[in-house]
Amino acid sequence: MTDNYTPRPEHHFTFGLWTVGNQGRDPFGHEVRPPLDPAESVRRLAALGAYGVNLHDNDLVPHGSTPSERETILKRFRTALDETGMQVPMATTNLFSLPIFKEGAFTANDPQVRRFAVRKTLDSIDLGAELGAHVYVMWGGREGVEADAAKDVRAALDRYKEAVDLCCEYIRERGYDLRIALEPKPNEPRGDMFLPTVGHALAFINELEWPGMVGLNPEFAHETMSGLSFTHAVAQTMWHDKLFHIDLNAQRIGKYDQDFRFGSEGIRDAFYLVRLLEDSGWDGMRHFDAHAYRTEDADGVWDFALGCMRTYLILKEKVERMREDAEIQDALRVAQADRLAEPTGTLAEVRAASFDEAALAAQGYGNERLDQLVTELLLGVR
Amino acid sequence: MTDNYTPRPEHHFTFGLWTVGNQGRDPFGHEVRPPLDPAESVRRLAALGAYGVNLHDNDLVPHGSTPSERETILKRFRTALDETGMQVPMATTNLFSLPIFKEGAFTANDPQVRRFAVRKTLDSIDLGAELGAHVYVMWGGREGVEADAAKDVRAALDRYKEAVDLCCEYIRERGYDLRIALEPKPNEPRGDMFLPTVGHALAFINELEWPGMVGLNPEFAHETMSGLSFTHAVAQTMWHDKLFHIDLNAQRIGKYDQDFRFGSEGIRDAFYLVRLLEDSGWDGMRHFDAHAYRTEDADGVWDFALGCMRTYLILKEKVERMREDAEIQDALRVAQADRLAEPTGTLAEVRAASFDEAALAAQGYGNERLDQLVTELLLGVR
Amino acid sequence: MTDNYTPRPEHHFTFGLWTVGNQGRDPFGHEVRPPLDPAESVRRLAALGAYGVNLHDNDLVPHGSTPSERETILKRFRTALDETGMQVPMATTNLFSLPIFKEGAFTANDPQVRRFAVRKTLDSIDLGAELGAHVYVMWGGREGVEADAAKDVRAALDRYKEAVDLCCEYIRERGYDLRIALEPKPNEPRGDMFLPTVGHALAFINELEWPGMVGLNPEFAHETMSGLSFTHAVAQTMWHDKLFHIDLNAQRIGKYDQDFRFGSEGIRDAFYLVRLLEDSGWDGMRHFDAHAYRTEDADGVWDFALGCMRTYLILKEKVERMREDAEIQDALRVAQADRLAEPTGTLAEVRAASFDEAALAAQGYGNERLDQLVTELLLGVR
Amino acid sequence: MTDNYTPRPEHHFTFGLWTVGNQGRDPFGHEVRPPLDPAESVRRLAALGAYGVNLHDNDLVPHGSTPSERETILKRFRTALDETGMQVPMATTNLFSLPIFKEGAFTANDPQVRRFAVRKTLDSIDLGAELGAHVYVMWGGREGVEADAAKDVRAALDRYKEAVDLCCEYIRERGYDLRIALEPKPNEPRGDMFLPTVGHALAFINELEWPGMVGLNPEFAHETMSGLSFTHAVAQTMWHDKLFHIDLNAQRIGKYDQDFRFGSEGIRDAFYLVRLLEDSGWDGMRHFDAHAYRTEDADGVWDFALGCMRTYLILKEKVERMREDAEIQDALRVAQADRLAEPTGTLAEVRAASFDEAALAAQGYGNERLDQLVTELLLGVR
Repeated sequence: MTDNYTPRPEHHFTFGLWTVGNQGRDPFGHEVRPPLDPAESVRRLAALGAYGVNLHDNDLVPHGSTPSERETILKRFRTALDETGMQVPMATTNLFSLPIFKEGAFTANDPQVRRFAVRKTLDSIDLGAELGAHVYVMWGGREGVEADAAKDVRAALDRYKEAVDLCCEYIRERGYDLRIALEPKPNEPRGDMFLPTVGHALAFINELEWPGMVGLNPEFAHETMSGLSFTHAVAQTMWHDKLFHIDLNAQRIGKYDQDFRFGSEGIRDAFYLVRLLEDSGWDGMRHFDAHAYRTEDADGVWDFALGCMRTYLILKEKVERMREDAEIQDALRVAQADRLAEPTGTLAEVRAASFDEAALAAQGYGNERLDQLVTELLLGVR
Repeated sequence: MTDNYTPRPEHHFTFGLWTVGNQGRDPFGHEVRPPLDPAESVRRLAALGAYGVNLHDNDLVPHGSTPSERETILKRFRTALDETGMQVPMATTNLFSLPIFKEGAFTANDPQVRRFAVRKTLDSIDLGAELGAHVYVMWGGREGVEADAAKDVRAALDRYKEAVDLCCEYIRERGYDLRIALEPKPNEPRGDMFLPTVGHALAFINELEWPGMVGLNPEFAHETMSGLSFTHAVAQTMWHDKLFHIDLNAQRIGKYDQDFRFGSEGIRDAFYLVRLLEDSGWDGMRHFDAHAYRTEDADGVWDFALGCMRTYLILKEKVERMREDAEIQDALRVAQADRLAEPTGTLAEVRAASFDEAALAAQGYGNERLDQLVTELLLGVR
Repeated sequence: MTDNYTPRPEHHFTFGLWTVGNQGRDPFGHEVRPPLDPAESVRRLAALGAYGVNLHDNDLVPHGSTPSERETILKRFRTALDETGMQVPMATTNLFSLPIFKEGAFTANDPQVRRFAVRKTLDSIDLGAELGAHVYVMWGGREGVEADAAKDVRAALDRYKEAVDLCCEYIRERGYDLRIALEPKPNEPRGDMFLPTVGHALAFINELEWPGMVGLNPEFAHETMSGLSFTHAVAQTMWHDKLFHIDLNAQRIGKYDQDFRFGSEGIRDAFYLVRLLEDSGWDGMRHFDAHAYRTEDADGVWDFALGCMRTYLILKEKVERMREDAEIQDALRVAQADRLAEPTGTLAEVRAASFDEAALAAQGYGNERLDQLVTELLLGVR
Repeated sequence: MTDNYTPRPEHHFTFGLWTVGNQGRDPFGHEVRPPLDPAESVRRLAALGAYGVNLHDNDLVPHGSTPSERETILKRFRTALDETGMQVPMATTNLFSLPIFKEGAFTANDPQVRRFAVRKTLDSIDLGAELGAHVYVMWGGREGVEADAAKDVRAALDRYKEAVDLCCEYIRERGYDLRIALEPKPNEPRGDMFLPTVGHALAFINELEWPGMVGLNPEFAHETMSGLSFTHAVAQTMWHDKLFHIDLNAQRIGKYDQDFRFGSEGIRDAFYLVRLLEDSGWDGMRHFDAHAYRTEDADGVWDFALGCMRTYLILKEKVERMREDAEIQDALRVAQADRLAEPTGTLAEVRAASFDEAALAAQGYGNERLDQLVTELLLGVR
């Protein structure tokens, strides 16, 4: 049974293997779901209408696999891709699970750990390229510190830059058609992590050797943990031409990293995000980095995956309706929303301007009405 | 009576006129302290050992003053400066109190409001230059939104850039020796503010016409509100060579903007910040942007001001002791803190490296011992 | 023009005089809207379909009014009530604006301040009773501390109890038909406030002289500031039979007290709250303790007020639809939601039970499907 | 080598087996430390000066052990206790790790899961009593919900009460000298947990069958996650005579559950807590529910444990110094801290009182000076 919100490959929905494959382990509890075969994930997601899957190196090829094991695994995985037409638009490296990374990866104090991390990433870049990925995500899960004395942040940024530069150099050397997308996060699993927000990562890129090769993969949950507006973060990322990828999920402010189903928390925030992506003509993937509640068995995982995509499509329809809603458009005019595109003027114009200060102070912007209209649009009663 | 922690002008402590002049008004209560004459603030702060005072235009010259009123006020203020030797190293503009700015200032939807905001800033730049300021702070108190539909964030950033570029152009035209320092804040008084963190502002600067003229004024409370590490933020700012000024105070995570006395909350965070400033040879001001509790009468204001400075000096002494503490230095070696300065190496070196993965995974970093030693240093028992 | 969501008096919507009368002052800005005559508020709210208005003593009668001034004001106000049929179901005291309360009111260290606070409350209770209120709200806006050394929390709770007991004694002495509702809040304007959550206040009531006279007035924004579930808080309040009144608005976690229009943030949270109130047959007021954005002129205030009520009615309709939605009801069965009402059993039954642990561990609860169905109900696509 | 801060058994420091036994697993990473034999933990902690160890049933006896395996394990453990003189003052049940509890334990929708949870607790109570524990802690790690529709909070509280009542009945039936201590937590691992704060749990106790048998085990990290003052929470718990046990650690507001070394974050908060415990003559355990950073090897665990205890003792010494510090005592008088113990008076006295409102409004409380003096005491410079 299909409706207007049935996902199709042209919607460009993707999932990480680690998302549907999440077994429900958490800091206080063991796995509740059996491991999921990556090929099975590919087939199930294809059946639901997804466009592709993304992966960490070890989601597919366990750490320590021999070359021939790797080959066998890849062959099996490719078969599933070929059968379903599913793509692998993005790949990334697991630099956080192994004990070797407990003190950091690209910014570990021990240079050998750093070398190990960079080399694992290079291998993983090969894997991504081999699978056809065009975006390489870097999430610095262990790049941070609890005991501040142990880490010189400026030196850590030097090392972070060095590692990203090395990866860029490698990509260039190999001639891969691959861009890097940094994924910021404020904390968890480290007390404080480097490049904690979209802003910090955008600034960092400017110091790199090949800044044009590097952009961002902002994640809904990660900005939201800090109470920052994710939509504003993505908008600023676009303003810098640095939106290379995006991670969609849901999260409550000031809590552990929840990675809930997209739209399950923060409906209004999710709506404005979809509006930004759709209105700006974002032509990249709609990637979900989330997982099913621990209450779920294997079936619940596919309910979860379908729900992510359906909510996106429902919100997308509302974006279109918002454009055509005469009353909302009128409220936008009252709010003078369109006038923000008008330049303020030259220095001479500014100095020459005269002001009716009282009138400017008295005018209202009708934001309550506007916001209420949007709320009613979201609630489906207009 | 003096001790080792008695402030002196060479410590470069400064206060805003609005800090000691804060009358204790808050969202739920009226003023509890009488207005404070700026000249009196200058004299009292000088007597306490401060280096200078900073100001918003309207802290000194009320909005709407005539040129002759302005002149009278300035003369009186200069007299106090001259008598005491106090400096005005930084100036800024009040773009948030007047009703005209209720929808924004540099990013108001109405272009006339934006022109008014820029012109008010230009006048205020003149005032700052006249008083000898070399840093011009820009805090966008009203640059933000509650009803997201009302504001296109990318257009807002265009306008923000335009306004800062205009101010830079003006400073260049006038030949002022003045640099601009942007002050990020995540929220309050707006629901979400633009340039919410140090990172977002650092990234923004790269898009400006004269990026070299613009840096940051990070504030302890503002980063801390979002749960981000202020010390990391300042370190990254330094890494980009963009620390132009700094606002010191105290704040609890996830609460209203508290602007408490420096060091009164977050002692450990305050210590690492002082360590960063002192170890990096920061030669700028130690500016306090805080105010006395509402429980205080006029005397409490000076207790507050003295306390800010004393705590800084106490922490500074601890920074020096940390350098000389053999056990801490040993713990830093165990943590391999110094090895973060060693380059990771070239691509060839990384690819050629061999690893004893088990040994690297097994090694401990002694961060518990290190952190405990620093805690005991802070508590004054070593 | 009316629709299904047009408020009517039987919906029992009420507003504080201070909510529509809010002039847009905030910590960083002056008033942007003119004062609003309480009689005008009554008439405008009546015209919108509200049931009544609530007030602080000084919302209506300025502090320091003479008895005859009080009489004149009251007469004028009563005329508006009589003309419109509007009620005053709740009254409260302003124990936070005056400088005298800067260190506390019921828990001020100075006994004279405490006496002043209690007496102001007694006078205000008279006013409330005179206007027909049956609920007396107590929000301890200044009951808290920043410098912990200054306040013994246990002694503060003794004094808090003493003050509430005195007010109960007075109500009994006067024979008023009035119950007291405590309103918890975690912080702002004090660094930490006493009775910070619904739970703390519920526990406190058990130590009072007349616990049956005292219940709660939980506020959406206040619990949400701490990241706690407001719906859970209200449910526990009901579980203790202590829901005497309720304050509806909207708030983002971990931010300043925003008091936004009901439903403008946290749509899902607002829905579950309305569901709880409606499903439990709550027969009290739906009181809005919120205010218009500072961007609004006088008209925006009424858009704000209407929006609060409309969103409640829209959500109420969804509650009814949820009861009749067969798929949602099926998902609730899969989640075993109804089985939570079944007792666990006696000690003997528990000890005698045998378990198929593997089967119990394997079963799924279908919460992803359930939650998605509710999301789609909220979005109006089912 | 010993100093004034060397822990000794009479200080009543205890650790959970799960704290020193923590292997450094987190949501993003595998174990980094080998399992620790409980008997080894007992011996190492004894050598450091601890008084005892506490445990979950499965910390000592793995789930599914046969009676004879249980006996062997217990014998070995008792030997270590006997050799060292270490006590087991508290025991608790693991109701969160097993997949069977994924939807809840005492408040699971499925009655069979609830019976399983209660029976596991009864067995665990036997174990605790056998080992000499006098406090039984109940932390409802899985009592909560993500998809609010799935759980009726009032029914959940009914079931929660039923389960605690059953346990009390069992303790009475067996004649154990054991009191129950509820441990509140706001979230993690569930989206929202029941009894989220100290206040909610205190209120809940009043509805139990044997409220005198049940009190609290407040945890520093759990209250702090919500931004609430832990010291205030403990003070209110004492005010209700319900402090039965306490969990000490460190945590930053609004982040994942960190369980850091006591005093490593929030030094000032830790100080006021120690002051409350010491000044009130708390004669229970000082239990640490924390664990070593993931950066640590096995040695770091003992650095961690020692650090917890040392910081407590250092702060305790400062509490004593605060009592004798004449300047601080003078500042407390200026703050009128002692006058909070004076009753406000009778209704007649309050009504008869006359006020010099202006003088009361004008007086200052010297909280800035007071707080600064305490800060300098903490920093060891007075």
